[in-house]
Amino acid sequence: MASLVIPDHFSATEDAETLRKACQGWGTNEKLIVKVLGHRNAAQRKQIRQAYEQLYEEDLVKRLESELSGDFEKAVYRWNLDPADRDAVLANVALKKSHPDYHVIVEISCIHSPEELLVVRKAYKLRYKRSLEEDVAAHSSGDVRKLLVGLVGAYRYEGEEINARLANSEADVLHDAIKHKVFNHDEVIRIVTTRSKAQLRATFNRYRDDQGTSITKNILVEHPDDFSVALRTAIRCLNDPKKYFEKVLRNAIKKSGTDEDALTRVIVTRAEKDLNEIKEEYYKRNSVSLDQSVAKETSGDYKAFLLALLGKDE
Amino acid sequence: MASLVIPDHFSATEDAETLRKACQGWGTNEKLIVKVLGHRNAAQRKQIRQAYEQLYEEDLVKRLESELSGDFEKAVYRWNLDPADRDAVLANVALKKSHPDYHVIVEISCIHSPEELLVVRKAYKLRYKRSLEEDVAAHSSGDVRKLLVGLVGAYRYEGEEINARLANSEADVLHDAIKHKVFNHDEVIRIVTTRSKAQLRATFNRYRDDQGTSITKNILVEHPDDFSVALRTAIRCLNDPKKYFEKVLRNAIKKSGTDEDALTRVIVTRAEKDLNEIKEEYYKRNSVSLDQSVAKETSGDYKAFLLALLGKDE
Repeated sequence: MASLVIPDHFSATEDAETLRKACQGWGTNEKLIVKVLGHRNAAQRKQIRQAYEQLYEEDLVKRLESELSGDFEKAVYRWNLDPADRDAVLANVALKKSHPDYHVIVEISCIHSPEELLVVRKAYKLRYKRSLEEDVAAHSSGDVRKLLVGLVGAYRYEGEEINARLANSEADVLHDAIKHKVFNHDEVIRIVTTRSKAQLRATFNRYRDDQGTSITKNILVEHPDDFSVALRTAIRCLNDPKKYFEKVLRNAIKKSGTDEDALTRVIVTRAEKDLNEIKEEYYKRNSVSLDQSVAKETSGDYKAFLLALLGKDE
Repeated sequence: MASLVIPDHFSATEDAETLRKACQGWGTNEKLIVKVLGHRNAAQRKQIRQAYEQLYEEDLVKRLESELSGDFEKAVYRWNLDPADRDAVLANVALKKSHPDYHVIVEISCIHSPEELLVVRKAYKLRYKRSLEEDVAAHSSGDVRKLLVGLVGAYRYEGEEINARLANSEADVLHDAIKHKVFNHDEVIRIVTTRSKAQLRATFNRYRDDQGTSITKNILVEHPDDFSVALRTAIRCLNDPKKYFEKVLRNAIKKSGTDEDALTRVIVTRAEKDLNEIKEEYYKRNSVSLDQSVAKETSGDYKAFLLALLGKDE
């Protein structure tokens, strides 16, 4: 369930006018921006952008970019984008870093449904005039490339049917590779990049039944390299997205200095989807609510905005 | 341009009745089947199947399968399927052979537009409850797998813009790998599986300008393995589909015994698309028309059917 709270009354024109007022004159009225945009869904935000463009012949996203700054600006910018376009931007930003954030690529390719992933790939081509896999391949090499290109290119079967015998034999294949610490074995990559999510869950369950520990625990090593980290992330995203996001949030918050990029990414991308369930996972695991943790670790307009998306206005 | 010739008048019900008559009583009237189905496009054939099902509560495709035999049956069966579904069947048949026909997989993934390839992948999942890349990966290994999974998973950028500097540098990368006979170099696979077709054509042109020979000539080796054959096929399909199909037809025809599978595949899959241009290529290269060659190498109903699809009824 979404955490986003939307009022009953909505008028794109009124919102556009309010946002215009918030941006005009001395200083920006950030509270007003949070009040409006922090309570509108993707379809409404799109209508607001269109109304704003019609009324003032100006791009709302760009105007807000110039009015705001820091983490707040980044969060509002990402929030304003259409979800698929936002993922395209997140992927591109992740790839262009001097050491690419491969986990963002893994996240996008493993969390989405096969159809959703295609929409992101289409948005990527539209925005960057290159394919997502093209940029992924150009910014990676060796086994990581093989894994990432496979994950990004996958168009998995969505059915819930599973083949128990296959789960059994492929759990053995995985264990055999992991036992010998050959995480980058071709068969490991094949299984993780091509099998349906339902089939993979059956395989991972079988692995745990046979070995007494989860596959992700078995892949933990003392000095993880890019490949083993990406593989673990993929398995966690495929296996249990909510638990995965809980951990990303937990790590982002407990980091000295807070990882605002990760915090923003998860809250902005999940607020309209399943952030309520992720909040539940978070509470279960940390005995403190996500709202409280976010309130404690952030401040100012950024904090107000995140709390609005979390459904907990100050 | 399509080679298929369609009459002005069309009635799905009349055609269904005609086909029913052709199948009933002593012996099948194959000529009637050719006369009807050899002159209907994919949308019409679908309507005929639906009308037949409604009228006779029987599946036309299955009924024809039981009435016909040999190469004729195979050709009619393939022709009756929706194009994307047909490609799914062709891919599956190719993969299930004891030594898989990788060139069929390469053909399907490199000839189609990115959107068309997605439709084939969707049809594959619908029919087989597995993804195409899943079956490709399960029926291949090593470098061939890497290449094929990359080709099948690609969702290339379709724009015509090219980056000349990139074409230049990647032509060098390709030449460097080929010079050292490392065809399976990761960078070769990356370039061929991810770049847009327009960009690849620019790169292959640049290669030819720099080296004085085409890249496909340079990949020819005395004892070709699966990988070098698949790579050459991919480059030829990406570079010039019509020339590629001309060669497939030429090889199929000049083979002692004729390769009916390849002959049927190309004629059935291209009759509604660009078989006229392929015929032109064939004539240019062989100084004899494709119709004449096909008439010479085939016989009976199979011959009549292929000639109908070629737009040259006997």
